[in-house]
Amino acid sequence: MKGESKIVVAVDESEESMYALSWCLSNLLSRNAAAAAAAAANNTTLVLLYVKPPLPVYSSFDAAGYLFSGDVIGSMEKYCDDMVHSVMERAEAVFRNFGTNMNIEKKVGSGDAKDVICHTVDKLNADTLVMGSHGYGFLKRTLLGSVSDYCAKHVKCPVVIVKHPKHN
Amino acid sequence: MKGESKIVVAVDESEESMYALSWCLSNLLSRNAAAAAAAAANNTTLVLLYVKPPLPVYSSFDAAGYLFSGDVIGSMEKYCDDMVHSVMERAEAVFRNFGTNMNIEKKVGSGDAKDVICHTVDKLNADTLVMGSHGYGFLKRTLLGSVSDYCAKHVKCPVVIVKHPKHN
Repeated sequence: MKGESKIVVAVDESEESMYALSWCLSNLLSRNAAAAAAAAANNTTLVLLYVKPPLPVYSSFDAAGYLFSGDVIGSMEKYCDDMVHSVMERAEAVFRNFGTNMNIEKKVGSGDAKDVICHTVDKLNADTLVMGSHGYGFLKRTLLGSVSDYCAKHVKCPVVIVKHPKHN
Repeated sequence: MKGESKIVVAVDESEESMYALSWCLSNLLSRNAAAAAAAAANNTTLVLLYVKPPLPVYSSFDAAGYLFSGDVIGSMEKYCDDMVHSVMERAEAVFRNFGTNMNIEKKVGSGDAKDVICHTVDKLNADTLVMGSHGYGFLKRTLLGSVSDYCAKHVKCPVVIVKHPKHN
């Protein structure tokens, strides 16, 4: 057993990903905090990971063949940056609500969500990945199979897939 | 929040499902036990679920068209019953090793593992399902898609998919 453990929570703009974060705080981290009181060596870091969609750098033509203007690309970039900020702020509010004093790290990736999540979990040598079952929100990037399916298959550590109760 | 919570662990003859049980005991239940010390109202039951494969009742012909003799069917039934016993015994040993004093329930289902697991989780109104990523062992019933994939999609509660480290 290594002394430090890392739990990655993949967050996005969905209600479900915030619910997954709450689940993690209630079921993995708060209990961990109780355990940590007994065993001070225990050191868990919660990593909030948000993945920005890849920007249309290579092809700035839309489906109908029109060239996106610089304005559109600029506003898309701004939208993405605003989204990162908003999601992270919300996640931190959820975290603060639980009143745990765990370490927290924020990471923002860019690209195909499933690849970025798997790569990050692997690189951090994370102990657990927690994510919503739907998503990954932006532009419904999930039409060709869900991100959580892919991650459950490809990451090495245990994966917790959390559904929002309202979606049931 | 209901007072009682149920965690279903799907066990089978694989190393991985025993590892999933250990993960659950280390990460969900033992912390829960620490929390329970503080809040006595907390009452968690661990449900060990084993699913026996469906017996060839409707068709006792094998792939080559031969009729299975009563002996073969009898020995298959015996094999299945022995397997239930062996898996449950092993699971209880893992459980005892952790020295938690949680409630434990054993359930044995029969049929298509994915349907039985989803149905049981639903019927028990379970809070969490924990299972290995491979399996469900017997006769490699997973060729047409893994049981964990299916369960992650179909059960209402959070699903933890645990991989055996050796399989990575």
